[in-house]
Amino acid sequence: MSTEFELIELFRSIGADYYKENGIVAGPGDDCAIFDIKTPIVTSVDSSLVDVHFPSNAPAEDIAYRSVAIALSDIAAMGCKPLAFSLAVSALEENKNWYKKMADGVNKIAEEFKIALIGGDLTRGPLNINVVAYGTPYAGNEILMRNNAQPGDIICISKPTGRARKGLIDWKMKNYDSVYIKDYFRPLAQIKLGKEIANIASACIDTSDGLLADLNKMLKASECGAIINIDRIPITTDLDDLNYGDDYDLCFTIPATKLKNKYFKIGEVTQNKEIKLISNKGYDVSIKGYEHF
Amino acid sequence: MSTEFELIELFRSIGADYYKENGIVAGPGDDCAIFDIKTPIVTSVDSSLVDVHFPSNAPAEDIAYRSVAIALSDIAAMGCKPLAFSLAVSALEENKNWYKKMADGVNKIAEEFKIALIGGDLTRGPLNINVVAYGTPYAGNEILMRNNAQPGDIICISKPTGRARKGLIDWKMKNYDSVYIKDYFRPLAQIKLGKEIANIASACIDTSDGLLADLNKMLKASECGAIINIDRIPITTDLDDLNYGDDYDLCFTIPATKLKNKYFKIGEVTQNKEIKLISNKGYDVSIKGYEHF
Repeated sequence: MSTEFELIELFRSIGADYYKENGIVAGPGDDCAIFDIKTPIVTSVDSSLVDVHFPSNAPAEDIAYRSVAIALSDIAAMGCKPLAFSLAVSALEENKNWYKKMADGVNKIAEEFKIALIGGDLTRGPLNINVVAYGTPYAGNEILMRNNAQPGDIICISKPTGRARKGLIDWKMKNYDSVYIKDYFRPLAQIKLGKEIANIASACIDTSDGLLADLNKMLKASECGAIINIDRIPITTDLDDLNYGDDYDLCFTIPATKLKNKYFKIGEVTQNKEIKLISNKGYDVSIKGYEHF
Repeated sequence: MSTEFELIELFRSIGADYYKENGIVAGPGDDCAIFDIKTPIVTSVDSSLVDVHFPSNAPAEDIAYRSVAIALSDIAAMGCKPLAFSLAVSALEENKNWYKKMADGVNKIAEEFKIALIGGDLTRGPLNINVVAYGTPYAGNEILMRNNAQPGDIICISKPTGRARKGLIDWKMKNYDSVYIKDYFRPLAQIKLGKEIANIASACIDTSDGLLADLNKMLKASECGAIINIDRIPITTDLDDLNYGDDYDLCFTIPATKLKNKYFKIGEVTQNKEIKLISNKGYDVSIKGYEHF
Protein backbone atom coordinates (compact mmCIF):
# COMPACT_ATOMS: atom_id res chain seq x y z
CA MET A 1 0.00 0.00 0.00
CA SER A 2 1.25 3.47 -0.90
CA THR A 3 1.87 6.24 1.61
CA GLU A 4 0.09 9.56 1.43
CA PHE A 5 3.38 11.13 0.39
CA GLU A 6 3.85 8.75 -2.57
CA LEU A 7 0.33 9.42 -3.79
CA ILE A 8 0.64 13.19 -3.45
CA GLU A 9 3.84 12.99 -5.51
CA LEU A 10 1.73 11.75 -8.46
CA PHE A 11 -0.07 15.08 -8.53
CA ARG A 12 2.44 17.58 -7.21
CA SER A 13 3.83 19.04 -10.42
CA ILE A 14 0.70 18.97 -12.59
CA GLY A 15 0.56 22.19 -14.60
CA ALA A 16 3.78 23.50 -13.01
CA ASP A 17 4.78 24.96 -16.40
CA TYR A 18 1.94 27.46 -16.05
CA TYR A 19 2.78 28.91 -12.62
CA LYS A 20 4.58 31.91 -13.98
CA GLU A 21 2.20 32.93 -16.77
CA ASN A 22 -0.78 32.45 -14.46
CA GLY A 23 0.56 34.64 -11.65
CA ILE A 24 1.28 31.82 -9.22
CA VAL A 25 4.33 32.71 -7.16
CA ALA A 26 4.06 29.63 -4.93
CA GLY A 27 2.41 26.37 -5.97
CA PRO A 28 1.86 23.31 -3.78
CA GLY A 29 4.35 22.55 -1.02
CA ASP A 30 3.77 25.36 1.44
CA ASP A 31 0.83 25.94 3.79
CA CYS A 32 -0.82 28.03 1.06
CA ALA A 33 -0.37 28.72 -2.63
CA ILE A 34 0.16 32.36 -3.59
CA PHE A 35 -1.30 34.38 -6.47
CA ASP A 36 0.28 37.70 -7.31
CA ILE A 37 -1.71 39.31 -10.12
CA LYS A 38 -3.13 42.79 -10.45
CA THR A 39 -6.47 41.74 -11.94
CA PRO A 40 -9.46 40.39 -9.99
CA ILE A 41 -9.62 36.71 -9.06
CA VAL A 42 -12.80 34.71 -9.50
CA THR A 43 -13.13 31.45 -7.60
CA SER A 44 -15.60 28.65 -7.07
CA VAL A 45 -15.76 25.23 -5.39
CA ASP A 46 -17.46 22.07 -6.70
CA SER A 47 -17.88 18.72 -5.01
CA SER A 48 -18.10 15.50 -7.03
CA LEU A 49 -19.44 12.50 -5.12
CA VAL A 50 -19.63 8.87 -6.10
CA ASP A 51 -23.21 7.77 -6.90
CA VAL A 52 -24.29 11.41 -7.00
CA HIS A 53 -22.08 13.02 -9.63
CA PHE A 54 -20.64 9.90 -11.22
CA PRO A 55 -21.25 6.11 -11.06
CA SER A 56 -19.13 4.11 -8.63
CA ASN A 57 -17.59 2.06 -11.44
CA ALA A 58 -16.61 5.05 -13.58
CA PRO A 59 -13.00 5.09 -14.80
CA ALA A 60 -10.68 7.02 -12.44
CA GLU A 61 -9.33 9.11 -15.30
CA ASP A 62 -12.83 10.24 -16.25
CA ILE A 63 -13.84 10.94 -12.65
CA ALA A 64 -10.79 13.15 -12.29
CA TYR A 65 -11.24 14.96 -15.60
CA ARG A 66 -14.91 15.58 -14.98
CA SER A 67 -14.41 16.86 -11.44
CA VAL A 68 -12.05 19.56 -12.68
CA ALA A 69 -14.13 20.30 -15.81
CA ILE A 70 -17.26 21.13 -13.82
CA ALA A 71 -15.29 23.55 -11.64
CA LEU A 72 -13.84 25.23 -14.74
CA SER A 73 -17.38 25.53 -16.06
CA ASP A 74 -18.01 28.13 -13.35
CA ILE A 75 -14.99 30.13 -14.52
CA ALA A 76 -16.40 29.94 -18.07
CA ALA A 77 -19.76 31.25 -16.85
CA MET A 78 -17.96 34.37 -15.55
CA GLY A 79 -16.35 34.86 -18.97
CA CYS A 80 -12.96 34.38 -17.35
CA LYS A 81 -9.63 32.74 -18.09
CA PRO A 82 -8.84 29.80 -15.81
CA LEU A 83 -5.54 30.07 -13.94
CA ALA A 84 -5.37 27.24 -11.47
CA PHE A 85 -7.23 24.76 -9.33
CA SER A 86 -6.87 22.81 -6.13
CA LEU A 87 -7.96 19.24 -5.58
CA ALA A 88 -9.08 17.64 -2.33
CA VAL A 89 -9.64 13.91 -2.68
CA SER A 90 -11.10 11.50 -0.14
CA ALA A 91 -10.87 7.90 -1.30
CA LEU A 92 -10.84 4.38 0.08
CA GLU A 93 -9.09 2.93 -2.97
CA GLU A 94 -5.81 1.19 -2.08
CA ASN A 95 -4.44 0.53 -5.55
CA LYS A 96 -1.75 3.03 -6.52
CA ASN A 97 -2.66 2.52 -10.17
CA TRP A 98 -6.09 4.01 -9.52
CA TYR A 99 -4.42 7.21 -8.26
CA LYS A 100 -2.09 7.19 -11.25
CA LYS A 101 -5.13 7.17 -13.51
CA MET A 102 -6.69 9.98 -11.47
CA ALA A 103 -3.49 11.96 -11.93
CA ASP A 104 -3.60 11.25 -15.69
CA GLY A 105 -7.12 12.66 -15.93
CA VAL A 106 -6.18 15.73 -13.91
CA ASN A 107 -3.05 16.23 -15.99
CA LYS A 108 -5.07 15.94 -19.22
CA ILE A 109 -7.38 18.82 -18.36
CA ALA A 110 -4.58 20.90 -16.81
CA GLU A 111 -2.67 20.73 -20.11
CA GLU A 112 -5.81 21.33 -22.18
CA PHE A 113 -6.52 24.62 -20.40
CA LYS A 114 -2.93 25.49 -19.41
CA ILE A 115 -3.74 25.68 -15.73
CA ALA A 116 -1.80 24.68 -12.64
CA LEU A 117 -2.69 22.47 -9.71
CA ILE A 118 -1.78 24.67 -6.75
CA GLY A 119 -2.76 22.62 -3.74
CA GLY A 120 -4.84 19.87 -2.33
CA ASP A 121 -5.59 17.35 0.31
CA LEU A 122 -5.73 13.57 0.33
CA THR A 123 -7.67 11.72 3.00
CA ARG A 124 -8.97 8.23 3.57
CA GLY A 125 -12.76 8.24 3.28
CA PRO A 126 -15.75 7.68 1.00
CA LEU A 127 -14.96 8.89 -2.53
CA ASN A 128 -15.41 12.65 -2.66
CA ILE A 129 -13.56 15.08 -4.87
CA ASN A 130 -13.52 18.78 -4.22
CA VAL A 131 -12.13 21.10 -6.83
CA VAL A 132 -11.62 24.81 -6.36
CA ALA A 133 -11.07 26.74 -9.57
CA TYR A 134 -9.40 30.15 -9.84
CA GLY A 135 -9.61 32.51 -12.80
CA THR A 136 -9.29 36.10 -13.91
CA PRO A 137 -10.90 38.20 -16.66
CA TYR A 138 -9.26 38.04 -20.09
CA ALA A 139 -7.43 41.28 -20.92
CA GLY A 140 -9.99 43.88 -21.98
CA ASN A 141 -12.95 41.74 -20.96
CA GLU A 142 -15.62 42.32 -18.35
CA ILE A 143 -16.50 39.75 -15.71
CA LEU A 144 -19.84 38.23 -16.70
CA MET A 145 -22.42 37.99 -13.92
CA ARG A 146 -25.77 36.25 -13.78
CA ASN A 147 -27.71 39.20 -12.39
CA ASN A 148 -27.73 41.63 -15.28
CA ALA A 149 -30.16 40.20 -17.86
CA GLN A 150 -32.31 43.02 -19.30
CA PRO A 151 -35.88 42.94 -20.67
CA GLY A 152 -35.71 42.44 -24.43
CA ASP A 153 -32.42 40.47 -24.29
CA ILE A 154 -32.38 37.20 -26.21
CA ILE A 155 -31.75 34.01 -24.22
CA CYS A 156 -29.21 31.67 -25.82
CA ILE A 157 -27.49 28.34 -25.34
CA SER A 158 -24.68 26.90 -27.45
CA LYS A 159 -25.50 23.21 -27.82
CA PRO A 160 -28.38 20.74 -27.54
CA THR A 161 -29.56 19.88 -24.03
CA GLY A 162 -29.53 16.34 -22.70
CA ARG A 163 -26.31 15.20 -24.34
CA ALA A 164 -24.72 14.26 -21.02
CA ARG A 165 -27.91 12.57 -19.88
CA LYS A 166 -27.88 10.38 -22.98
CA GLY A 167 -24.16 9.75 -22.55
CA LEU A 168 -24.64 8.38 -19.06
CA ILE A 169 -27.52 6.16 -20.16
CA ASP A 170 -25.53 4.86 -23.14
CA TRP A 171 -22.55 4.13 -20.90
CA LYS A 172 -24.71 2.24 -18.43
CA MET A 173 -26.19 0.25 -21.35
CA LYS A 174 -22.62 -0.47 -22.49
CA ASN A 175 -23.21 1.31 -25.83
CA TYR A 176 -19.59 2.34 -25.81
CA ASP A 177 -19.68 3.64 -29.39
CA SER A 178 -22.07 6.41 -28.40
CA VAL A 179 -20.71 9.87 -29.17
CA TYR A 180 -22.56 11.18 -26.12
CA ILE A 181 -20.50 9.33 -23.53
CA LYS A 182 -17.82 11.96 -23.82
CA ASP A 183 -20.40 14.66 -23.12
CA TYR A 184 -21.02 13.05 -19.77
CA PHE A 185 -17.54 12.00 -18.70
CA ARG A 186 -15.45 14.67 -20.36
CA PRO A 187 -17.63 17.76 -20.52
CA LEU A 188 -15.86 20.55 -22.36
CA ALA A 189 -15.66 23.55 -20.03
CA GLN A 190 -17.00 26.40 -22.20
CA ILE A 191 -14.05 28.69 -21.54
CA LYS A 192 -13.78 29.68 -25.20
CA LEU A 193 -17.47 30.54 -25.39
CA GLY A 194 -17.28 32.52 -22.13
CA LYS A 195 -14.40 34.56 -23.54
CA GLU A 196 -16.31 35.15 -26.79
CA ILE A 197 -19.47 36.46 -25.10
CA ALA A 198 -17.91 38.23 -22.08
CA ASN A 199 -18.31 41.68 -23.62
CA ILE A 200 -21.57 41.15 -25.49
CA ALA A 201 -23.71 39.07 -23.12
CA SER A 202 -25.57 40.82 -20.31
CA ALA A 203 -25.80 37.73 -18.06
CA CYS A 204 -24.62 34.14 -18.01
CA ILE A 205 -24.90 30.93 -15.97
CA ASP A 206 -23.63 27.41 -16.54
CA THR A 207 -26.20 24.64 -16.95
CA SER A 208 -25.19 22.16 -14.32
CA ASP A 209 -28.51 21.53 -12.58
CA GLY A 210 -30.81 21.52 -15.64
CA LEU A 211 -31.33 24.15 -18.32
CA LEU A 212 -34.67 25.43 -17.06
CA ALA A 213 -33.62 25.42 -13.40
CA ASP A 214 -30.42 27.32 -14.13
CA LEU A 215 -32.16 29.73 -16.49
CA ASN A 216 -34.65 30.33 -13.68
CA LYS A 217 -31.79 31.18 -11.29
CA MET A 218 -30.30 33.67 -13.76
CA LEU A 219 -33.67 35.38 -14.28
CA LYS A 220 -34.35 35.53 -10.54
CA ALA A 221 -30.93 37.05 -9.91
CA SER A 222 -31.67 39.59 -12.65
CA GLU A 223 -35.18 40.26 -11.30
CA CYS A 224 -36.68 39.53 -14.70
CA GLY A 225 -38.95 36.99 -16.31
CA ALA A 226 -38.93 35.41 -19.75
CA ILE A 227 -40.92 33.89 -22.53
CA ILE A 228 -39.26 30.62 -23.45
CA ASN A 229 -40.17 28.86 -26.68
CA ILE A 230 -39.83 25.18 -25.82
CA ASP A 231 -39.96 24.25 -29.53
CA ARG A 232 -36.71 26.12 -30.11
CA ILE A 233 -34.69 24.32 -27.48
CA PRO A 234 -32.64 21.61 -29.17
CA ILE A 235 -33.05 18.35 -27.28
CA THR A 236 -31.25 15.02 -27.53
CA THR A 237 -33.76 12.44 -26.27
CA ASP A 238 -36.98 13.97 -25.00
CA LEU A 239 -38.35 16.93 -23.08
CA ASP A 240 -36.92 15.60 -19.81
CA ASP A 241 -33.60 16.83 -21.17
CA LEU A 242 -34.70 20.34 -20.19
CA ASN A 243 -34.77 19.44 -16.52
CA TYR A 244 -31.74 17.17 -16.45
CA GLY A 245 -28.38 18.62 -15.51
CA ASP A 246 -24.77 17.76 -16.34
CA ASP A 247 -24.60 19.55 -19.70
CA TYR A 248 -22.25 22.29 -18.48
CA ASP A 249 -23.18 24.48 -21.41
CA LEU A 250 -23.56 28.23 -20.87
CA CYS A 251 -27.01 29.83 -20.90
CA PHE A 252 -26.73 33.56 -21.52
CA THR A 253 -28.64 36.69 -22.50
CA ILE A 254 -27.58 39.07 -25.26
CA PRO A 255 -29.10 42.39 -26.33
CA ALA A 256 -30.82 41.77 -29.68
CA THR A 257 -28.53 44.27 -31.46
CA LYS A 258 -25.39 42.35 -30.50
CA LEU A 259 -26.68 38.90 -31.30
CA LYS A 260 -24.64 36.45 -33.36
CA ASN A 261 -26.25 33.79 -35.45
CA LYS A 262 -24.25 30.91 -34.10
CA TYR A 263 -26.20 30.39 -30.85
CA PHE A 264 -29.54 28.69 -30.23
CA LYS A 265 -32.05 31.43 -29.39
CA ILE A 266 -34.60 29.94 -27.02
CA GLY A 267 -36.50 32.92 -25.64
CA GLU A 268 -36.60 36.54 -24.59
CA VAL A 269 -36.21 38.27 -21.25
CA THR A 270 -39.28 40.15 -19.99
CA GLN A 271 -39.83 42.84 -17.37
CA ASN A 272 -42.63 40.77 -15.86
CA LYS A 273 -41.04 38.33 -13.41
CA GLU A 274 -43.02 35.36 -14.63
CA ILE A 275 -41.40 32.65 -16.74
CA LYS A 276 -43.75 31.61 -19.53
CA LEU A 277 -42.99 28.37 -21.32
CA ILE A 278 -44.74 28.38 -24.70
CA SER A 279 -44.98 25.73 -27.42
CA ASN A 280 -46.79 25.68 -30.73
CA LYS A 281 -46.40 21.93 -30.73
CA GLY A 282 -48.33 21.59 -27.47
CA TYR A 283 -45.35 20.55 -25.34
CA ASP A 284 -46.06 20.83 -21.64
CA VAL A 285 -43.03 21.24 -19.40
CA SER A 286 -42.47 22.58 -15.92
CA ILE A 287 -39.25 23.69 -14.27
CA LYS A 288 -37.73 21.12 -11.97
CA GLY A 289 -33.97 20.86 -11.96
CA TYR A 290 -31.70 18.70 -9.92
CA GLU A 291 -32.13 18.62 -6.13
CA HIS A 292 -28.99 17.53 -4.32
CA PHE A 293 -30.93 16.92 -1.14
CA MET B 1 -37.15 17.42 5.20
CA SER B 2 -35.53 20.64 4.06
CA THR B 3 -34.63 21.47 0.51
CA GLU B 4 -31.08 22.24 -0.57
CA PHE B 5 -32.17 25.84 -1.06
CA GLU B 6 -33.49 26.20 2.50
CA LEU B 7 -30.30 24.78 3.95
CA ILE B 8 -28.07 27.00 1.81
CA GLU B 9 -30.04 30.01 3.04
CA LEU B 10 -28.79 29.27 6.58
CA PHE B 11 -25.25 30.00 5.43
CA ARG B 12 -25.63 32.50 2.62
CA SER B 13 -25.00 35.78 4.40
CA ILE B 14 -22.38 34.67 6.93
CA GLY B 15 -19.72 37.36 7.15
CA ALA B 16 -21.46 39.51 4.52
CA ASP B 17 -20.51 42.62 6.54
CA TYR B 18 -16.87 41.99 5.64
CA TYR B 19 -17.19 41.75 1.84
CA LYS B 20 -16.18 45.34 1.24
CA GLU B 21 -13.24 45.65 3.64
CA ASN B 22 -11.90 42.27 2.47
CA GLY B 23 -11.96 43.09 -1.24
CA ILE B 24 -14.86 40.81 -2.15
CA VAL B 25 -16.86 42.41 -4.94
CA ALA B 26 -19.19 39.40 -5.36
CA GLY B 27 -19.97 36.92 -2.61
CA PRO B 28 -22.09 33.78 -2.93
CA GLY B 29 -24.94 33.73 -5.45
CA ASP B 30 -23.12 33.77 -8.78
CA ASP B 31 -21.09 31.03 -10.47
CA CYS B 32 -17.98 32.40 -8.77
CA ALA B 33 -17.10 34.84 -6.01
CA ILE B 34 -14.83 37.74 -7.02
CA PHE B 35 -11.86 39.27 -5.19
CA ASP B 36 -10.59 42.62 -6.36
CA ILE B 37 -7.52 43.53 -4.31
CA LYS B 38 -4.12 44.71 -5.39
CA THR B 39 -2.13 42.60 -2.93
CA PRO B 40 -1.28 38.89 -3.38
CA ILE B 41 -3.83 36.25 -2.41
CA VAL B 42 -2.82 33.16 -0.44
CA THR B 43 -5.16 30.19 -0.47
CA SER B 44 -5.38 26.67 0.90
CA VAL B 45 -7.90 23.82 1.09
CA ASP B 46 -8.53 21.49 4.03
CA SER B 47 -10.82 18.49 4.25
CA SER B 48 -12.40 17.43 7.54
CA LEU B 49 -13.86 13.93 7.59
CA VAL B 50 -15.94 12.19 10.17
CA ASP B 51 -13.97 9.52 12.10
CA VAL B 52 -10.74 10.92 10.69
CA HIS B 53 -10.70 14.57 11.74
CA PHE B 54 -13.51 14.50 14.29
CA PRO B 55 -15.64 11.86 16.07
CA SER B 56 -19.00 10.99 14.50
CA ASN B 57 -20.89 12.18 17.57
CA ALA B 58 -19.15 15.55 17.80
CA PRO B 59 -21.45 18.56 18.11
CA ALA B 60 -22.30 20.12 14.72
CA GLU B 61 -21.29 23.57 15.92
CA ASP B 62 -17.84 22.32 16.89
CA ILE B 63 -17.36 20.34 13.68
CA ALA B 64 -18.14 23.48 11.70
CA TYR B 65 -15.95 25.79 13.78
CA ARG B 66 -13.04 23.37 13.71
CA SER B 67 -13.24 22.78 9.95
CA VAL B 68 -12.87 26.50 9.29
CA ALA B 69 -10.25 26.99 12.03
CA ILE B 70 -7.87 24.43 10.55
CA ALA B 71 -8.08 26.11 7.15
CA LEU B 72 -7.37 29.50 8.74
CA SER B 73 -4.37 27.93 10.44
CA ASP B 74 -2.73 27.72 7.01
CA ILE B 75 -3.31 31.44 6.47
CA ALA B 76 -1.72 32.05 9.89
CA ALA B 77 1.31 29.98 8.89
CA MET B 78 1.85 32.36 5.95
CA GLY B 79 1.73 35.34 8.34
CA CYS B 80 -1.34 36.57 6.49
CA LYS B 81 -4.65 38.21 7.23
CA PRO B 82 -7.65 35.98 6.50
CA LEU B 83 -10.21 37.46 4.10
CA ALA B 84 -12.73 34.80 3.27
CA PHE B 85 -13.50 31.12 2.99
CA SER B 86 -15.71 28.74 1.08
CA LEU B 87 -17.45 25.71 2.51
CA ALA B 88 -18.36 22.50 0.69
CA VAL B 89 -20.39 20.15 2.88
CA SER B 90 -21.46 16.60 2.13
CA ALA B 91 -23.82 15.24 4.77
CA LEU B 92 -26.48 12.60 5.24
CA GLU B 93 -28.07 14.38 8.19
CA GLU B 94 -31.76 15.18 7.58
CA ASN B 95 -32.48 17.34 10.59
CA LYS B 96 -32.52 21.03 9.72
CA ASN B 97 -31.50 21.84 13.28
CA TRP B 98 -28.18 20.11 12.70
CA TYR B 99 -27.48 22.45 9.77
CA LYS B 100 -28.55 25.42 11.88
CA LYS B 101 -25.95 24.42 14.45
CA MET B 102 -23.35 24.03 11.69
CA ALA B 103 -24.21 27.53 10.50
CA ASP B 104 -23.86 28.81 14.09
CA GLY B 105 -20.35 27.36 14.33
CA VAL B 106 -19.39 28.81 10.96
CA ASN B 107 -20.85 32.17 11.90
CA LYS B 108 -18.97 32.17 15.20
CA ILE B 109 -15.56 31.87 13.55
CA ALA B 110 -16.46 34.21 10.69
CA GLU B 111 -17.28 36.95 13.22
CA GLU B 112 -14.23 36.15 15.34
CA PHE B 113 -11.88 36.73 12.41
CA LYS B 114 -14.05 39.18 10.44
CA ILE B 115 -14.08 37.01 7.35
CA ALA B 116 -16.77 36.28 4.78
CA LEU B 117 -18.21 33.03 3.48
CA ILE B 118 -17.97 33.51 -0.29
CA GLY B 119 -19.25 30.26 -1.70
CA GLY B 120 -19.90 26.62 -1.22
CA ASP B 121 -21.57 23.43 -2.14
CA LEU B 122 -24.02 21.17 -0.35
CA THR B 123 -24.41 17.54 -1.38
CA ARG B 124 -25.93 14.42 0.06
CA GLY B 125 -23.18 11.99 1.04
CA PRO B 126 -20.96 10.76 3.87
CA LEU B 127 -19.99 13.63 6.16
CA ASN B 128 -17.12 15.55 4.59
CA ILE B 129 -16.37 19.23 4.98
CA ASN B 130 -14.05 21.07 2.66
CA VAL B 131 -12.96 24.55 3.54
CA VAL B 132 -10.93 26.81 1.28
CA ALA B 133 -9.38 29.80 3.02
CA TYR B 134 -8.22 33.00 1.32
CA GLY B 135 -5.91 35.61 2.80
CA THR B 136 -3.49 38.40 1.99
CA PRO B 137 -0.38 39.81 3.69
CA TYR B 138 -0.97 42.43 6.38
CA ALA B 139 0.06 45.91 5.19
CA GLY B 140 3.84 46.19 5.38
CA ASN B 141 4.32 42.49 6.12
CA GLU B 142 6.12 39.81 4.14
CA ILE B 143 4.48 36.50 3.27
CA LEU B 144 6.03 33.86 5.50
CA MET B 145 7.14 30.67 3.74
CA ARG B 146 8.34 27.36 5.10
CA ASN B 147 11.42 27.09 2.91
CA ASN B 148 13.64 29.84 4.23
CA ALA B 149 14.95 28.58 7.60
CA GLN B 150 18.66 29.44 7.95
CA PRO B 151 21.42 27.65 9.88
CA GLY B 152 21.72 29.24 13.29
CA ASP B 153 18.04 30.26 13.47
CA ILE B 154 16.21 29.32 16.64
CA ILE B 155 13.22 26.98 16.32
CA CYS B 156 10.17 28.09 18.29
CA ILE B 157 6.61 27.11 19.10
CA SER B 158 4.06 29.17 21.03
CA LYS B 159 2.25 26.68 23.26
CA PRO B 160 2.59 23.19 24.75
CA THR B 161 2.14 20.26 22.38
CA GLY B 162 -0.52 17.64 22.89
CA ARG B 163 -3.24 19.93 24.20
CA ALA B 164 -5.69 18.88 21.47
CA ARG B 165 -4.77 15.23 21.93
CA LYS B 166 -5.62 15.46 25.63
CA GLY B 167 -8.80 17.40 24.80
CA LEU B 168 -10.08 14.64 22.55
CA ILE B 169 -9.28 11.95 25.14
CA ASP B 170 -10.99 13.94 27.90
CA TRP B 171 -14.05 14.49 25.72
CA LYS B 172 -14.28 10.79 24.92
CA MET B 173 -13.96 10.03 28.66
CA LYS B 174 -16.76 12.55 29.26
CA ASN B 175 -14.47 14.75 31.41
CA TYR B 176 -16.36 17.75 30.18
CA ASP B 177 -14.70 20.10 32.68
CA SER B 178 -11.34 19.63 30.99
CA VAL B 179 -9.83 22.89 29.75
CA TYR B 180 -8.26 20.95 26.87
CA ILE B 181 -11.50 20.07 25.11
CA LYS B 182 -11.58 23.53 23.58
CA ASP B 183 -8.07 23.01 22.22
CA TYR B 184 -9.39 20.09 20.22
CA PHE B 185 -12.80 21.32 19.10
CA ARG B 186 -12.17 25.04 18.86
CA PRO B 187 -8.50 25.40 17.98
CA LEU B 188 -7.52 29.06 17.88
CA ALA B 189 -6.13 29.80 14.43
CA GLN B 190 -2.83 31.56 15.21
CA ILE B 191 -3.51 34.54 12.98
CA LYS B 192 -2.31 37.01 15.62
CA LEU B 193 0.94 35.12 16.11
CA GLY B 194 1.46 34.86 12.34
CA LYS B 195 1.06 38.61 12.01
CA GLU B 196 3.48 39.20 14.90
CA ILE B 197 6.26 37.04 13.47
CA ALA B 198 5.75 37.68 9.74
CA ASN B 199 8.64 40.12 9.51
CA ILE B 200 11.00 38.49 12.02
CA ALA B 201 10.64 34.76 11.38
CA SER B 202 12.58 33.18 8.51
CA ALA B 203 10.22 30.21 8.07
CA CYS B 204 6.95 28.91 9.49
CA ILE B 205 4.59 25.92 9.31
CA ASP B 206 1.45 25.02 11.22
CA THR B 207 1.53 21.91 13.39
CA SER B 208 -1.42 19.95 12.09
CA ASP B 209 0.18 16.53 11.56
CA GLY B 210 2.42 16.42 14.66
CA LEU B 211 5.12 18.82 15.82
CA LEU B 212 8.12 16.72 14.81
CA ALA B 213 6.61 15.72 11.45
CA ASP B 214 5.74 19.30 10.54
CA LEU B 215 9.08 20.60 11.77
CA ASN B 216 10.69 17.97 9.57
CA LYS B 217 8.73 19.25 6.56
CA MET B 218 9.84 22.83 7.20
CA LEU B 219 13.49 21.80 7.50
CA LYS B 220 13.30 19.66 4.37
CA ALA B 221 11.75 22.54 2.42
CA SER B 222 14.55 24.79 3.70
CA GLU B 223 17.22 22.16 2.93
CA CYS B 224 18.50 22.34 6.48
CA GLY B 225 18.73 20.12 9.54
CA ALA B 226 18.38 20.85 13.24
CA ILE B 227 19.34 19.96 16.75
CA ILE B 228 16.16 19.64 18.76
CA ASN B 229 16.28 19.52 22.53
CA ILE B 230 13.41 17.25 23.48
CA ASP B 231 13.62 18.36 27.13
CA ARG B 232 12.70 21.88 26.09
CA ILE B 233 9.49 20.99 24.28
CA PRO B 234 6.55 21.58 26.60
CA ILE B 235 4.27 18.56 26.59
CA THR B 236 0.81 17.99 28.01
CA THR B 237 0.62 14.24 28.65
CA ASP B 238 3.69 12.35 27.49
CA LEU B 239 6.27 12.22 24.71
CA ASP B 240 3.69 10.90 22.25
CA ASP B 241 2.40 14.47 22.17
CA LEU B 242 5.35 15.27 19.89
CA ASN B 243 4.05 12.98 17.18
CA TYR B 244 0.37 13.68 17.58
CA GLY B 245 -1.28 16.32 15.41
CA ASP B 246 -4.25 18.65 15.82
CA ASP B 247 -2.48 21.37 17.84
CA TYR B 248 -2.58 23.93 15.02
CA ASP B 249 0.14 25.95 16.68
CA LEU B 250 2.83 27.58 14.53
CA CYS B 251 6.35 26.20 14.48
CA PHE B 252 8.81 28.83 13.21
CA THR B 253 12.44 29.79 12.96
CA ILE B 254 13.84 33.16 14.00
CA PRO B 255 17.38 34.54 13.66
CA ALA B 256 18.86 34.62 17.17
CA THR B 257 19.25 38.41 17.05
CA LYS B 258 15.54 38.97 16.51
CA LEU B 259 14.30 36.49 19.06
CA LYS B 260 11.64 37.43 21.60
CA ASN B 261 11.44 35.80 24.99
CA LYS B 262 7.79 34.85 24.77
CA TYR B 263 8.18 31.74 22.62
CA PHE B 264 9.30 28.23 23.56
CA LYS B 265 12.76 27.72 22.02
CA ILE B 266 13.09 24.05 21.19
CA GLY B 267 16.17 23.84 19.00
CA GLU B 268 18.47 25.34 16.42
CA VAL B 269 18.65 25.03 12.64
CA THR B 270 21.85 23.43 11.28
CA GLN B 271 23.52 23.37 7.87
CA ASN B 272 23.82 19.60 8.13
CA LYS B 273 20.54 18.14 6.84
CA GLU B 274 20.21 15.67 9.68
CA ILE B 275 17.68 16.20 12.45
CA LYS B 276 19.23 15.34 15.81
CA LEU B 277 16.90 14.85 18.74
CA ILE B 278 18.84 15.25 21.98
CA SER B 279 17.79 14.85 25.60
CA ASN B 280 19.71 15.15 28.85
CA LYS B 281 16.90 13.28 30.53
CA GLY B 282 17.39 10.25 28.28
CA TYR B 283 14.14 10.66 26.33
CA ASP B 284 14.09 8.61 23.17
CA VAL B 285 11.75 9.83 20.44
CA SER B 286 11.53 9.32 16.71
CA ILE B 287 9.64 11.35 14.14
CA LYS B 288 6.37 9.80 13.07
CA GLY B 289 3.50 12.18 12.46
CA TYR B 290 0.02 11.54 11.26
CA GLU B 291 -0.49 9.41 8.15
CA HIS B 292 -3.83 10.04 6.45
CA PHE B 293 -3.48 6.89 4.40
